Amino acid sequence: MASRLTPEREAELYAAVLDLLREVGYDALTMDAVAARTRSSKATLYRQWGSKPQLVAMALRHDKPVRIDEIDTGSLRGDFALMLERTDDCRMEKDAALMRGLAHAVHNNPELLQAMRELLVEPEMNSLDEMLQRAVRRGEVDADNPALKLMPHMLIGAFIARPLIDDRPVDAAFLTDYVNAVVLPSLGA
Amino acid sequence: MASRLTPEREAELYAAVLDLLREVGYDALTMDAVAARTRSSKATLYRQWGSKPQLVAMALRHDKPVRIDEIDTGSLRGDFALMLERTDDCRMEKDAALMRGLAHAVHNNPELLQAMRELLVEPEMNSLDEMLQRAVRRGEVDADNPALKLMPHMLIGAFIARPLIDDRPVDAAFLTDYVNAVVLPSLGA
Repeated sequence: MASRLTPEREAELYAAVLDLLREVGYDALTMDAVAARTRSSKATLYRQWGSKPQLVAMALRHDKPVRIDEIDTGSLRGDFALMLERTDDCRMEKDAALMRGLAHAVHNNPELLQAMRELLVEPEMNSLDEMLQRAVRRGEVDADNPALKLMPHMLIGAFIARPLIDDRPVDAAFLTDYVNAVVLPSLGA
Repeated sequence: MASRLTPEREAELYAAVLDLLREVGYDALTMDAVAARTRSSKATLYRQWGSKPQLVAMALRHDKPVRIDEIDTGSLRGDFALMLERTDDCRMEKDAALMRGLAHAVHNNPELLQAMRELLVEPEMNSLDEMLQRAVRRGEVDADNPALKLMPHMLIGAFIARPLIDDRPVDAAFLTDYVNAVVLPSLGA
């Protein structure tokens, strides 16, 4: 799909989309504005990404600081530790602000919800699931442990509840506590 | 605070507030509309509840189908089981829709966020914490188990992630799975 653009050009476009999202929000963001800011044609944007929801979802995915699918240390505890080591607190807070801003747009735009599910949430969940399945194959976690399929729920809870309940941003220290206190015990690891 | 109204009258007022919330949303809900619908004076409403955010938070609190502070079966597993038994799936879905509608208003109204924290979230969390502390005193959970203070985060995850990830409403069956797979194992119970 992205064959016509260089990775650098793609990264530039995604960065411009996120800047615009922060400046004007999802509803006011137009493909015209993205085209103008990046000196590209709207035709190119539509050919490459299909629609505004898809472009936004891909920009958010590209911005993810940690690539779970690149992590494979040989143990589940090590995989989580490396994931948290690669977590950048400042960046995570910026991302969280962006996602909060999008929460409302998602409610009112079923297409955006679908694009975010397909292009952002599912690939992330699949990578996480592969990480867990490797732990199952190594015998670290029982194959029928019911917590395996509840991992997204546990992690989303950490991200949503930290600001809501504790009035503090999610950072690597908090996530480390959460993984050690909730995630690993539920997996029996 | 509520000394001037009978419990029946209070319940009527709260029900009217929730009806209006569902009909017009938080931003468009006015104290005038609540007064008109309930045939009360605005002065009474302000004297009794202080402000719109506080009235809305109290109405939501009053609507909670399960009173955690009334549950004490003598075991942690039993307490969770009774809590889930008292959970009404239809009512929970209606409540979830209402809370989703409020999510945006909370972002834009710091006063509403504060009222919901003080009048709705904190009392609920305190009741839950008392339930957990009883389990600690009975020796079912270690006093220094780090999952004790992460209970709200785990539970919020279940409520938020179920529709988002699984595209299904939260119901008693799902919550039972979640409590057995995540909550109780993290508590070592």
